[in-house]
Amino acid sequence: MWAESLKPDLLVPLMILEQPLLFYRDQYGVAAALDDMCPHRLAPLSLGRLLPNGNLQCGYHGLEFDSSGQCVRNPHGSGRIPRACAVHRYTLVERHRLLWIWPGDETPDPGAIPDFSFLDEDSGYDVGPRDTIRMDSNYRNIIDNLMDLSHASFLHPDLLGNEETIQARIDIKQEGNSVQVRRDMNDVRPPLLRDLLFKQDGARVNMWNSIRWDAPSALLNDVGTYAPEADPAQFAGQLGCHILTPQTADTTLYFTAAAKQGPLASRSADGEVDFKARIAELRRTAFKDQDDPMIRAQQINIRLHPGVRPVLFEIDAAPVRCQRILNALIEEEQKRVSSRISEEP
Amino acid sequence: MWAESLKPDLLVPLMILEQPLLFYRDQYGVAAALDDMCPHRLAPLSLGRLLPNGNLQCGYHGLEFDSSGQCVRNPHGSGRIPRACAVHRYTLVERHRLLWIWPGDETPDPGAIPDFSFLDEDSGYDVGPRDTIRMDSNYRNIIDNLMDLSHASFLHPDLLGNEETIQARIDIKQEGNSVQVRRDMNDVRPPLLRDLLFKQDGARVNMWNSIRWDAPSALLNDVGTYAPEADPAQFAGQLGCHILTPQTADTTLYFTAAAKQGPLASRSADGEVDFKARIAELRRTAFKDQDDPMIRAQQINIRLHPGVRPVLFEIDAAPVRCQRILNALIEEEQKRVSSRISEEP
Amino acid sequence: MWAESLKPDLLVPLMILEQPLLFYRDQYGVAAALDDMCPHRLAPLSLGRLLPNGNLQCGYHGLEFDSSGQCVRNPHGSGRIPRACAVHRYTLVERHRLLWIWPGDETPDPGAIPDFSFLDEDSGYDVGPRDTIRMDSNYRNIIDNLMDLSHASFLHPDLLGNEETIQARIDIKQEGNSVQVRRDMNDVRPPLLRDLLFKQDGARVNMWNSIRWDAPSALLNDVGTYAPEADPAQFAGQLGCHILTPQTADTTLYFTAAAKQGPLASRSADGEVDFKARIAELRRTAFKDQDDPMIRAQQINIRLHPGVRPVLFEIDAAPVRCQRILNALIEEEQKRVSSRISEEP
Ligand code: FES
Ligand code: FES
Ligand code: FES
Repeated sequence: MWAESLKPDLLVPLMILEQPLLFYRDQYGVAAALDDMCPHRLAPLSLGRLLPNGNLQCGYHGLEFDSSGQCVRNPHGSGRIPRACAVHRYTLVERHRLLWIWPGDETPDPGAIPDFSFLDEDSGYDVGPRDTIRMDSNYRNIIDNLMDLSHASFLHPDLLGNEETIQARIDIKQEGNSVQVRRDMNDVRPPLLRDLLFKQDGARVNMWNSIRWDAPSALLNDVGTYAPEADPAQFAGQLGCHILTPQTADTTLYFTAAAKQGPLASRSADGEVDFKARIAELRRTAFKDQDDPMIRAQQINIRLHPGVRPVLFEIDAAPVRCQRILNALIEEEQKRVSSRISEEP
Repeated sequence: MWAESLKPDLLVPLMILEQPLLFYRDQYGVAAALDDMCPHRLAPLSLGRLLPNGNLQCGYHGLEFDSSGQCVRNPHGSGRIPRACAVHRYTLVERHRLLWIWPGDETPDPGAIPDFSFLDEDSGYDVGPRDTIRMDSNYRNIIDNLMDLSHASFLHPDLLGNEETIQARIDIKQEGNSVQVRRDMNDVRPPLLRDLLFKQDGARVNMWNSIRWDAPSALLNDVGTYAPEADPAQFAGQLGCHILTPQTADTTLYFTAAAKQGPLASRSADGEVDFKARIAELRRTAFKDQDDPMIRAQQINIRLHPGVRPVLFEIDAAPVRCQRILNALIEEEQKRVSSRISEEP
Repeated sequence: MWAESLKPDLLVPLMILEQPLLFYRDQYGVAAALDDMCPHRLAPLSLGRLLPNGNLQCGYHGLEFDSSGQCVRNPHGSGRIPRACAVHRYTLVERHRLLWIWPGDETPDPGAIPDFSFLDEDSGYDVGPRDTIRMDSNYRNIIDNLMDLSHASFLHPDLLGNEETIQARIDIKQEGNSVQVRRDMNDVRPPLLRDLLFKQDGARVNMWNSIRWDAPSALLNDVGTYAPEADPAQFAGQLGCHILTPQTADTTLYFTAAAKQGPLASRSADGEVDFKARIAELRRTAFKDQDDPMIRAQQINIRLHPGVRPVLFEIDAAPVRCQRILNALIEEEQKRVSSRISEEP
């Protein structure tokens, strides 16, 4: 979640991984995430209120909780509070102007947050609007979409690709639980977004995409365009983040923002604010209006035909690696969980 | 169901306990409830019509049924009627201007109907509008709500409770399958509804709630307010019925009405009809607009976390007793049903 | 599907038997039906486009397929195409201005298409509008409806039946997987549709219905009306087709059209086009506004009471035969399928 979306004094309920959570900032402004469920009668705490002292008051019978999740006040009768009366609090780290949550069973490790420092306040990058898109599709199918950008020519014709950008040199690198795939397309007619970010003259270009995926679902897209025969260092392009938070099996929050990069990055006649808004609008069109309906329709077919395996091609090499890593991580977690359960008395 | 809602010449389909039933009045005005399903091809009888002779005619192929549920006419071919051609008729008793139904397997016993005689025509009470509220929540969670009125201070602030009414003396009585819980709150600022029913001057009061639950789901709320230090017999308040009919696991029909009681019961300047309508409106706001969304949200959490048990407090003593009685009654019925099944050849 | 509904250059996605299929005409105008699912990533091919050369291009990554379903172009990288990269193509036969599909496992046999030659271009019949009705009910319950027209007096009062048409002489013939049921109703007041097709004077008539069902779900209704005591050959009536394509367990496409028949077939003062439109409108009212809600409601009861068997009457003789044949055909197919599975290595 974008840190800026979590305003003070607000209770923000958010379904993540099929669990209803509650996000808010405590009296010191520190972001907190709790299960959105009072331990008393299981009413959602998001229907209660945030007290001036930073405590949460349940809206049903008025129990109060501090931001660690512990119940600290029972206003009824003797006022006694059973020990077990506490809400699960999730580790939350605010970094790169995003909130990172640890919903699983692993020891939270802020060192594992992938590098999105271009989004930092003091990064020197001029970051456009921080957008939140609700996708009606599963995060794993969105990863397949992003790690195989060959689809741009067909699904985003003229906007992100065209007939000349189908053929590309593909390079894949894998390091631990990170996969990077680079596409180089040389001497091609530039699609609209490339041209806007470059010379805005429609002249033929060399262009690259280099997209990095870090498990489970954070992607950084490095895009550049330069004149054929010119020095590739004389380029213009952008960095974009594509961070996916699964809400349910069918829906995903897609956090995305972009910043121009490269010595030739163009200026707009209409002023930078308008220009950044226009770029953000085009990106939203591509992701929400073009990618999402296709992925959702694909997903319906996948569900209807559980026995059918995709026929894979060269373009699938990068997404296949990501899915293998995800499968392994999920399997490991399930083993940990079931061994923990069998150890319990 | 309110007896007055079942008008002559109408076929009223109503889902009760996940079963589609049909209510109507026969040629003598006697209320009847049948399975809403023709034994021929299972079409709903509510899509047919009530003949002048009091018989029901199925709207699909025209079989006719008397109010005992027996098929009495087959208009086709030889006109032969197989013995098995009958609809199940439920016992229905009209009492206290309500219709009471026996959906289960027990021998119907009108003596088991709890006392709601204040609703009778000749009770001497001036009963307000008989309201039917469709709640989007399960009847058992509504019972928890009503048997623990400590929630009034938080969920109905200023209307039914306030900060001063949180603390109360609680007395619980149990007799057979009936539980009564009384709350006394002394020397408090009166919430709106109390003040309206009492002196309408906002002066501090003593007040009580005494709510009686009879299994499975009929509640009578006896409410009174009097001046601190005064004789409690010099009070004003009201009697209210809260009768719950489960439709599905997620929906309940809530039949409610109230009548003023006590020597000091106030009169309204606007006339009694308007006053009763205003009180009914405030009660509907509390139940439908405040209780129902909270209970429904609570219920979603309960479903999402089947393993999580509520952490219970002193205020839960009365609802816990009701739920134990319900569990026992349900278990008994299931035993009866399964022993009957195993006895069948 | 009506052949005329499948226009050139269109991709028509259609769910049949819970499977998403894609219908279109290839470059020669020949109708084709494919699984609406690309073998690559399972995206629906209906979101792609039809190329001028008659190939289908997937809208996600641009694979191309010919109308046999074989992948014939991979525009990426080496262009290599795995053998398995093909879509299932269904046999489709265009006959009687309808498209007939073989969704099951049997060898397609165009000889098995029942005779609806009155619908042919050169049949000599003046066929009215070819209507497609989406029914919100299961095809088997619609067959029960059509094979027992005794319901007309109750469900279509005055339009297709009335009190005098309840009693009828019923004759049933069965031949292989075809069942025919004839109802003769003599000396009766004519329902509206009969009168419109005959003398339009409201005088009493003899009338018949003879409806033929061919497994699994194609029905031909032969209707005639003549004056009592007159020669039955001096009649007027119509032929109607009722062809049912199951989409899901709850929805069916109902393809219907009618043509007048008989030496006395009446002419309309308003001209034939208006007259045919009026007849089609009355038929649509009967099927969609009267039959469908009843069948759908019946179906909900059937689902809610899986243990309840219908109580059958004489009028059920014909539909019972059809359902037995369907049960036998389904059982045979399941045996074939499971024996094929067990034979696989
Ligand atoms: S449910 Fe939260 S205090 Fe009761
Ligand atoms: S379904 Fe009721 S008469 Fe046939
Ligand atoms: S899903 Fe059809 S080409 Fe990829």
